[in-house]
Amino acid sequence: MALLFSSKSDDVDRWRDILARELPDLDFRQWTPALDDVGDPADIEYVLAWGPKPGAFMGFPNLKCIFSLGAGVDHLIGRDLPPNVPVVRLMDPGLTRGMREYVLYWVLHHHRRFADYAEGQNKNRWQQYGQADTRTRRIGILGLGVLGLDAAAKLAALEFDVAGWSRSPKEVDGITTFHGKDGLTDFLCRTEILVCLLPLTPDTAGIINTETLSQLPSGAVVINAARGGHVVDDDLIRALDSGHVSAAVLDVFHTEPLPPEHPFWDHPKVTVTPHIASLTMPETAALVVADNIRRIRTGQPPEPIVDPETGY
Amino acid sequence: MALLFSSKSDDVDRWRDILARELPDLDFRQWTPALDDVGDPADIEYVLAWGPKPGAFMGFPNLKCIFSLGAGVDHLIGRDLPPNVPVVRLMDPGLTRGMREYVLYWVLHHHRRFADYAEGQNKNRWQQYGQADTRTRRIGILGLGVLGLDAAAKLAALEFDVAGWSRSPKEVDGITTFHGKDGLTDFLCRTEILVCLLPLTPDTAGIINTETLSQLPSGAVVINAARGGHVVDDDLIRALDSGHVSAAVLDVFHTEPLPPEHPFWDHPKVTVTPHIASLTMPETAALVVADNIRRIRTGQPPEPIVDPETGY
Repeated sequence: MALLFSSKSDDVDRWRDILARELPDLDFRQWTPALDDVGDPADIEYVLAWGPKPGAFMGFPNLKCIFSLGAGVDHLIGRDLPPNVPVVRLMDPGLTRGMREYVLYWVLHHHRRFADYAEGQNKNRWQQYGQADTRTRRIGILGLGVLGLDAAAKLAALEFDVAGWSRSPKEVDGITTFHGKDGLTDFLCRTEILVCLLPLTPDTAGIINTETLSQLPSGAVVINAARGGHVVDDDLIRALDSGHVSAAVLDVFHTEPLPPEHPFWDHPKVTVTPHIASLTMPETAALVVADNIRRIRTGQPPEPIVDPETGY
Repeated sequence: MALLFSSKSDDVDRWRDILARELPDLDFRQWTPALDDVGDPADIEYVLAWGPKPGAFMGFPNLKCIFSLGAGVDHLIGRDLPPNVPVVRLMDPGLTRGMREYVLYWVLHHHRRFADYAEGQNKNRWQQYGQADTRTRRIGILGLGVLGLDAAAKLAALEFDVAGWSRSPKEVDGITTFHGKDGLTDFLCRTEILVCLLPLTPDTAGIINTETLSQLPSGAVVINAARGGHVVDDDLIRALDSGHVSAAVLDVFHTEPLPPEHPFWDHPKVTVTPHIASLTMPETAALVVADNIRRIRTGQPPEPIVDPETGY
């Protein structure tokens, strides 16, 4: 009865300690590139993974569940996973807290022109800019999953004019909702600050491109805290250089770490953060995984299981 | 039946336009340093003011109310005002929105180490720092008036561990409250990020000083969005230089604009903003003043009238 931990970017010691406290009888094993021997493959019932090699989990006859170490599962799906083994996204209140903080901070940064005030201090210049009315500042959230809904609700509580877009129709108190390909243009046309919190799937890859950016009003701001694959980098740079998009805040990239020569690093209108919008913290996330293992042990399904149709 | 507008820093044209729309019969007069003639002094029933000269409003026999152009009234109180004329603070939902945005932004800035990430981008450096748990981040709000209560509630909604301090006892859902001189030490000892939103009165002047700063835990952050007079500047600089206080965000100063030679401008641990935490916007504030004038005309008291005992 063992769990196999497979990640190069997560803190294995903290995960081991907390899972040992939560589930003392769970045999915790680590799979590292240097150590390919995980013991008897028949022991492995659970996998806890970020970005495995394709086919890595095919040889475990008793595998019951693959747990993602992040909210997204694009780092797992399509990597030749064993069929009929449920894949479970990490739905962790700690992740939700971190993401709402990142989104609120960068929305407020642009809404209140804090970059201009920082520049003012650099020049010892006392200059006030006008203050836009929060109630007419139009924020648009791409993606109304757990993270998108939470960020939208918190922005609405600050009295921003918030809209959300999702694949299928959703009704949400306090925000205007749009859906599907047909709704995307209307959603973009009214969005001054765009926040991407979509899952990365074949449908959403490259969704931030020349066509969609051109539908935003002039001077719009783009914040991407989802996946680098949502953005066509060259298209975004062109929209920034033309001035149509006034600024971008990017936490995620096609290649991570972002290569030192990538133009985003030094672009004056781009803020780069190193995939920290919301870090998976074992202190909260391991409790969620432990709860799911307890559910499986008592015959209940873990939550939330990825739908192979939609990919999230 | 006239209103006298007396401010060098507010936009007289926007105020005149909105008040003309709200109260078409109100005679709007402007008092500027260049134009000391306000017509017949007996016409003046209302004054709308920021920082008048002492005694400026003594010669109006029919004055019914002095309205502050800001949330605070320290710019009015003690300036030889006519006795028995109520002074009314500006309690404007627009001011509340602006202040909560400023407080949330700077709390998140320090909570999530965004200055370190900006420095990382400057060096094209992909480096993640740990993410502190929001639920154990202890924020302390000095002052539980309308602005302090609102900021505290919004921070608590993000799941921060929020406490508040006020002169007299208050009970507030979701936050820990302290009061009076005796409660101040306990409040400071548990506060990692201190936010000052107090009124400036003889009791609160200089409240941020060597003694109170020394009671904060090492590495604390100080945010002052109230009045410059709350801070003993030299004491704060000493606490920053010693490292006991790790950073300060200051929106208000003893002298404004902050003089170019003041050490705050160039101090590496100080963020200076030019009194913009929450600007009075005529679009919302003039509606509040118009409502109060309607109240007075129909025999009701305006709100909120300053208590001469407490000075707020």
